[in-house]
Formats: sequence, structure tokens, C-alpha cells
Amino acid sequence: MDWKSRIEAAAQRIADHVQVTPVLEARGFGLDVPVQMKLEQMQHTGSFKPRGAFNTLLSGPVPAAGLVAASGGNHGAAVAYAARALGHRARIFVPEMAGPSKIALIRDIGADLTVVPGEYANALEAARAYEAETGAMQIHAYDAPETVAGQGTVLREWEAQGLSADTVLIAVGGGGLIAGALGWLQGARKVVAVEPETSCALNAALAAGAPVDVEVSGIAANSLGARRIGGICFDLARRFGIETVTVPDAAIARAQKMLWRERRVLVEPAGATALAALISGAYRPEPGESVAVLVCGANIAPDPFES
Amino acid sequence: MDWKSRIEAAAQRIADHVQVTPVLEARGFGLDVPVQMKLEQMQHTGSFKPRGAFNTLLSGPVPAAGLVAASGGNHGAAVAYAARALGHRARIFVPEMAGPSKIALIRDIGADLTVVPGEYANALEAARAYEAETGAMQIHAYDAPETVAGQGTVLREWEAQGLSADTVLIAVGGGGLIAGALGWLQGARKVVAVEPETSCALNAALAAGAPVDVEVSGIAANSLGARRIGGICFDLARRFGIETVTVPDAAIARAQKMLWRERRVLVEPAGATALAALISGAYRPEPGESVAVLVCGANIAPDPFES
Repeated sequence: MDWKSRIEAAAQRIADHVQVTPVLEARGFGLDVPVQMKLEQMQHTGSFKPRGAFNTLLSGPVPAAGLVAASGGNHGAAVAYAARALGHRARIFVPEMAGPSKIALIRDIGADLTVVPGEYANALEAARAYEAETGAMQIHAYDAPETVAGQGTVLREWEAQGLSADTVLIAVGGGGLIAGALGWLQGARKVVAVEPETSCALNAALAAGAPVDVEVSGIAANSLGARRIGGICFDLARRFGIETVTVPDAAIARAQKMLWRERRVLVEPAGATALAALISGAYRPEPGESVAVLVCGANIAPDPFES
Repeated sequence: MDWKSRIEAAAQRIADHVQVTPVLEARGFGLDVPVQMKLEQMQHTGSFKPRGAFNTLLSGPVPAAGLVAASGGNHGAAVAYAARALGHRARIFVPEMAGPSKIALIRDIGADLTVVPGEYANALEAARAYEAETGAMQIHAYDAPETVAGQGTVLREWEAQGLSADTVLIAVGGGGLIAGALGWLQGARKVVAVEPETSCALNAALAAGAPVDVEVSGIAANSLGARRIGGICFDLARRFGIETVTVPDAAIARAQKMLWRERRVLVEPAGATALAALISGAYRPEPGESVAVLVCGANIAPDPFES
């Protein structure tokens, strides 16, 4: 099935379970032109991830052993949320680097939680072992067709809300969200992938001609710190074309602060990464080129209401 | 001039200076039905107040002595912001109860600031003395026609964005925002005024048959703590009809936390006060009655980026 049809089907499937998130044309940030924004961090659990999770769970039978996922935090929260909403068990493997706020977020939703020392790849390994042992259904955080199709519904929804920008900037970790965007847009708009300098698996893969392992670190690593870009994302990036830029942590922190100071939008570093490319000049639109930024996550640490 | 025409004129006047704020149909909060929301806390300076400030400054000549305002924080920030944008001097009198975050907010915009011991009424007195002495132009926080017409543009904008709810819930302090809403809607939708139990000047005025002084305290007092409701608001409430409800601080705090936990919308207590009426059951919609909540301010203390 073509990606457009998959995403269309996903949108119908998940409609009753996800929040339609607001859009605006944001002024400010020291930029000459307004920026079209979609505030997808207002999705259930504070990121776009429930779209892929619900689409996966609603696409086929779920075993009695329930679900298993490995996640730096946001995907785990989404799987836990979707599992609870649909009445399934869920076991989430979270890398220690996710930090206490994201770990508490998942625990509060009510999933069984295992904290794994180290980074995302370690958690993924533990989740695969659990899957093999129990028969639980693995929901990959970014490199599975149902996940990608679910995330692609963000762009479908945004276009229905009047997205008109020439270019859409999207932060990239493992590439599930941007793969969904590429699958929906199919070249109709320019897609710019924005990665932290210290966690840029897509950039490295495109340079190497194939997905390769990278070291991950930095302030956005617990959301964007995938060691290797997803194969689906890589293939779609090559098929439809993409421009990639990287931004330093300082630019991400500055964009995060400006989003709050100028628009009272509080996000985690990953949620400010796409905007950081515009503010820092890492991506400079041509004269007359209109731009859009997808704000993707708000699970900030510390949580403002953490006691 | 009729209020509808005043607000229409205000909207044209301020269009280049304000942010069109996003709307959404929000699910959750333990409610059976979605709530239409306008996120006006994403306006410049974190509240709706710049609409009235810009409308006032653009409605006539500004004296060389510049502007003066008394404010619990949000109006002061808005006047300082509008003055800077239009090249005027501004002197803001802030009551001590505004707290360090709001005082820093105004100082950071670049206005001359005088912190007055006590509550809003004390700051207003000081501002009036300064006005008499210097000839500076006073911008009243809520009880002047240009201020009310400016705030009324929120409802005009919301209707253009598709507001369809039967009933709109709005938090009330001095009544500038809800007066603008009444002036725009003119009975076309039901308007519910939501006040903190410990700061309910409109309620008291309607009970007494005229604006009367009330004691103000509680967690939303630095935004909603007006000692006496504005005369314009009172007259419009009597003319077009209004329902008033009050909510305890605990319900406001709970709504504030739920806005963050469920929608990642971080607001100050005043910004959660209208929603608190629904969550707490202080206002119970009839079966089939659709409701809308205006989210009006996000100048939270402590500021998440305060060092």
C-alpha cells in the first residue's frame, strides 16, 4: 500500500483516540517572517507518539502477553497511554538517560516499567529479549510501518488545518515523525530535517549512504538520541529528497527559552530543535520562502509541577 | 458608537501588533464533552492585555510625558510592551503583591517601574498621582472604552476561527476582558463569569446592585484581584445578562495542573480559573450545551526559566 493511503487509513483508525492539536502563525523569535507552527506537544502524553502507538494497536490483534516497548520516554509514555485506553497490558523498557521526569510520566500512566542502565539501544535490546521470551507485541519507536503511518497523520491534519508553507522543519531522532511527513507530503513541500550536532543519525546515514551507528549525547538526547536512523526514514528521505541541518545544544536551549518567553509555549529541548534551525540561521529560507515548524514534545525536566 | 463597531475598529487598528492566538477543541479534564479553547495566554507578554493597550495608544495622540499604568503585572507588561513597540515612554506602578516574576517581566521589557507596597488599588492611586503631576497618559487596566474594545477583539477573532460553543466561560478580575466579550457577543452566546471565591468583585456588584469594594486574596489575586468591578463591565453585564460562578483556590490549582498534565499548557492561576468552573462542577452545562473556555494568562511564578 502506498504511504498516502496508509496514513489516510491510520487517521481514520485513531481519530477517536488522539487530540487534534492547534496551529498558529507565530510572530517573533527575531525572525523577519512569521512561522507556521503546529503545537503537537499538546497531544496526549506530551508528544506526537500516541498517533503511532494507537495506529499499531488498532491495526491488528494484540497478544494476551500485551505490549512491550523500548523508549527514551515519549514513546514509552505513548504506548502506556494507548495500552491503558484500549485495555492492554504494557511493559516499557526505559534507558536510565530518560531521566526522572519521563520515568515518572510513564509510571503515572500505569505501565510496568523497567529502567535499563545506559542509552536507548540498551533498552531496545532488553525489550527484544522480553518480546522473545513472553510473546508480547513489540511496538517499535520509529522503524515500523504502522508507527510511521500513525506519525504521518500529523502532516495530514496540519494540511487540513491550512498549512501553506513551502518548507516544513522537523526535528529528527530515529526518524519516525519525519518519515511519516515524507510519506504524506511525497515531495509536495520541502522537508528539512533538524538534528542536534551531538545526535545526528540521519545526517550520518545520508553521508555514509546507509544507516550507520552514531554516538548520541546532548540536551535533547533522551528524545532524539537514536543511535541509528530507521530504515523506513532513510528510504523515504532518499526517495523524496530531504535537506538536513544540525544545531548545537546552545541553539536548542535558546529556542526553548524563546518559545516560552515570546509565546508561552513550554517544550522540552527536542520540541525546540526545529525552531532552533531558523533562529540560529542553520537553515536560512530563501527570500519569499514561507516556513513551518513542527513543535513535537513538551516532557520537560524538571516537570513544572514536580514536587 | 456601538460596541460592535468599536471592537471592529480596534481589531483593524491593532492587527499588525498582536498575535492571532490558536484555538483547539480540547479533550480530557475528566469532562464528558470536549471544550473549545482559545489560548490567548500565547499573546505577546503572556496575556490578552496588549490588545487593549495597543488599541488605546493607537486611538489618539500620546503626550510627550508618555504613559502611565497601574497593574498587578499583566496589564503593566502589556503597556510597557506596546509603548516600546510604538516608541513611547512608560511608567508602570506595580503592587508588591504582583510578585517577583511579574515585576521582572515588566522590567525586562524596559519600562520605568515603581513597586508600590500593598495591593492593586494602592498602585492605581500612585499612578493617578503621577498622571496628575506629569501629564502622562493613564491607561486603565480594565475600565476604559479603548481598553474594553481592544480586549473585545479576542472574541471577534475567536468567532472568525470557528467558535461555535453555546457558552463561553471567562475569568474575571476587573472585568475588561469579559466586558469586551459581552460587547462583541451582545447576547449571541451565553457568557459565564468565573471568579475566585476570594476575589469576586463582579459577583458582589451584581448582588449589591452596583459596583462595591471587596477584599481580594488567593492564588489568582495578582491577576484577578481587582477591588471593584469596572463600571463598563457592570453595565454590559446588566444589559446583556451574565451568569456568575465562583471557584475556590483549590479548584483553580487543580485546573492549572490538569492543563499542564493533559494538554501541556502552562498557565498562571488566573489562566486556569475559567476551566476550573467546569472541572469543579461550579458550572454544569445542560445536556447538549457546548462550552468554550478562554485561557487568558501564563505569567506563572516562578517563571520556568527564572535562574
